Amino acid sequence: MPVNLKPPVAAELLPVAGVALGIAQAGIRKANRRDLLLIRLDEGAAVAGVFTQNRFCAAPVTVCREHLQAGAIRALVVNTGIANAGTGEPGMQSARATCAAAARLLGCTPAQVLPFSTGVIMEPLPVERIEAGLPASVADLREDNWAAAAEAIMTTDTLPKAASRKVSLGGTAVTVTGIAKGAGMIRPNMATMLGFVATDAAVAPALLRRLVREAADASFNCVTVDGDTSTNDSFVLIASGKAGNAPIADASSADYAALRQAVTAVAGELAQAIVRDGEGATKFMTIEVRGGRDAAECKAVGYAIAHSPLVKTAFFASDPNLGRILAAIGNAGIADLDVSQVKLWLDEVLVSENGGRASSYREEDGARVMKQAEIAVRVDLARGATQATVWTCDFSYDYVKINADYRS
Amino acid sequence: MPVNLKPPVAAELLPVAGVALGIAQAGIRKANRRDLLLIRLDEGAAVAGVFTQNRFCAAPVTVCREHLQAGAIRALVVNTGIANAGTGEPGMQSARATCAAAARLLGCTPAQVLPFSTGVIMEPLPVERIEAGLPASVADLREDNWAAAAEAIMTTDTLPKAASRKVSLGGTAVTVTGIAKGAGMIRPNMATMLGFVATDAAVAPALLRRLVREAADASFNCVTVDGDTSTNDSFVLIASGKAGNAPIADASSADYAALRQAVTAVAGELAQAIVRDGEGATKFMTIEVRGGRDAAECKAVGYAIAHSPLVKTAFFASDPNLGRILAAIGNAGIADLDVSQVKLWLDEVLVSENGGRASSYREEDGARVMKQAEIAVRVDLARGATQATVWTCDFSYDYVKINADYRS
Repeated sequence: MPVNLKPPVAAELLPVAGVALGIAQAGIRKANRRDLLLIRLDEGAAVAGVFTQNRFCAAPVTVCREHLQAGAIRALVVNTGIANAGTGEPGMQSARATCAAAARLLGCTPAQVLPFSTGVIMEPLPVERIEAGLPASVADLREDNWAAAAEAIMTTDTLPKAASRKVSLGGTAVTVTGIAKGAGMIRPNMATMLGFVATDAAVAPALLRRLVREAADASFNCVTVDGDTSTNDSFVLIASGKAGNAPIADASSADYAALRQAVTAVAGELAQAIVRDGEGATKFMTIEVRGGRDAAECKAVGYAIAHSPLVKTAFFASDPNLGRILAAIGNAGIADLDVSQVKLWLDEVLVSENGGRASSYREEDGARVMKQAEIAVRVDLARGATQATVWTCDFSYDYVKINADYRS
Repeated sequence: MPVNLKPPVAAELLPVAGVALGIAQAGIRKANRRDLLLIRLDEGAAVAGVFTQNRFCAAPVTVCREHLQAGAIRALVVNTGIANAGTGEPGMQSARATCAAAARLLGCTPAQVLPFSTGVIMEPLPVERIEAGLPASVADLREDNWAAAAEAIMTTDTLPKAASRKVSLGGTAVTVTGIAKGAGMIRPNMATMLGFVATDAAVAPALLRRLVREAADASFNCVTVDGDTSTNDSFVLIASGKAGNAPIADASSADYAALRQAVTAVAGELAQAIVRDGEGATKFMTIEVRGGRDAAECKAVGYAIAHSPLVKTAFFASDPNLGRILAAIGNAGIADLDVSQVKLWLDEVLVSENGGRASSYREEDGARVMKQAEIAVRVDLARGATQATVWTCDFSYDYVKINADYRS
């Protein structure tokens, strides 16, 4: 039951010139479901990506990193069902075979294709099914196919996730559209399970590499469902250059700032959608930590709260058992934290100060906020001027059910 | 439903000369339950403790640290129901008032009393109920009261936890007996929720401080239920000196080694009992990590596996979805880990090598081990000669239920 999340409306997802998407049913793990997405890029597109920091990263992640170094990317192939992670050297061969199959159909080289996989870990990728399914994806290629593409990359997601923005750069209208998937094993460290955002803006490749990092840090790198960083996290930003704007090459330009805002807005909406549709989620929490000495300690406190099973189950129960949040703050690893200075609010309700419960706090105020579907947890560490935000969801019976049943 | 854990048999818990225990029903949070324990020590006992690293540590933990520095401890007072954590300066006053009340009854100074609390965080301690209950605890003081004491410190525990050993030191029989509680908010960092072990051996105070750390590192500091380090973790070791052994003052002596083995055995049994009775536990896992460059990285891998909600739910489901364990290893923060060298076994079944599934692995072998109530997860990092062990349990519907319902 996703929290305040609606399926994207196909007509509201703006096509990006130079970016076509085709979907097929390849039967990779289950029959009769869209599980193979091909994204074809016109010549001249710039592509940049950020990937998981998990040491057991998937074979396609390793291949993506290689191919992005060479540049001149012409296609992305995405399959669901099997993650092709924990698959050793045979997994690398399967990822390369996927690229080769797409390259043959599109008339480019295998190094111009990026492969992506999501699904069960440590099972072999049935690459022959991908090869057999790709011609149908090619036949389906269309620029207005984003909604179907968002569906084709789902695993335990209950709803597809997509977002669009329009922005004017020096008088030229530019489009940014993206899709993502998530649900579980979500604690992106560089990026999310799978996120793809495309714009028709012209952007210098070096600047695009900066933009994808900045956008990830302000979106996918701020969310967590269960603290488990996936083996397959990949966030890719495509700039087709078809909009006709003056190519952006200066990070201090107004055009870069405007495009960054649009890309970050799309990525942020997708990242929040992943949390809203987190496995078993019934509540959406925004954890704002301010007053830190640096962003790292603010994030550490945010994640300590967001990862505590005791905090997450209290939110599920709508129980203002808020001492658990203090315990989580105390566990964030800040050795010299003066807890007597820490303040804690739920929305606008001051819960704790001076190391204990605020004298103004009334249980009924906490109970009222805890019943809401959207809750802000605000912490002031009172030791500096930086801040950070983490988005997360609660921990319910359904999280256990979904993950106990996932393979069966 | 605790995993292979039986209630202690009162007759098997050996009294420790010089250590008397008294229990009362003080109605601290709920009526008609034993919730107040007094432990009285004869003059001359040595006491050492280790406490939580949580920055929001409870008021009694702060007072314990103060009083232990002065030494000459004569009593311990333990209440359940209210943790007296996140209670600011009023909480400190309540902890001190508890010590003063016990001191008046026993004829010692407040600084000779150690206070301990466990229960709900950020609620005020009803110190007047403790004061009213203490005379009944005094009237109940007996050296053969360990079983009732183990019961009196329970919160969400389903069974009391106690253990005893006898060891011969230079021909003198010495006893070690201890009790502990746990169940949730369990990821001890120095100690567990509450653990008390007493021996009648004579041990020099400085060496006792070393022994309590060594025993904690090999027992309570190896377990986790949910990764949440409590605000109240306390592990206290008492040496009454009544056994008549030659006082132990040399860490390299055979007597110290023998006593350390007995104390560690009692502490280890108690620590494992906490995991076996972990909230909602249906399985008990021993995670052995070897081949690390240092113990810290072995522990990091062990805890990454033990804390992953995806790994824990797979164990609950008896589903050999073992790629999740690889993902957890990859998330342990070892930046230069060569995953192609890592090996993973379930009991004796080799699951993974060369970065992927072992060619000898059969799903039915994994499924067979996953059905057991006790499972060894063995990891070889193949980069060094150190090892570490972590004990944990699975993650079930009942964990969510218990923690969603705890206060109601």
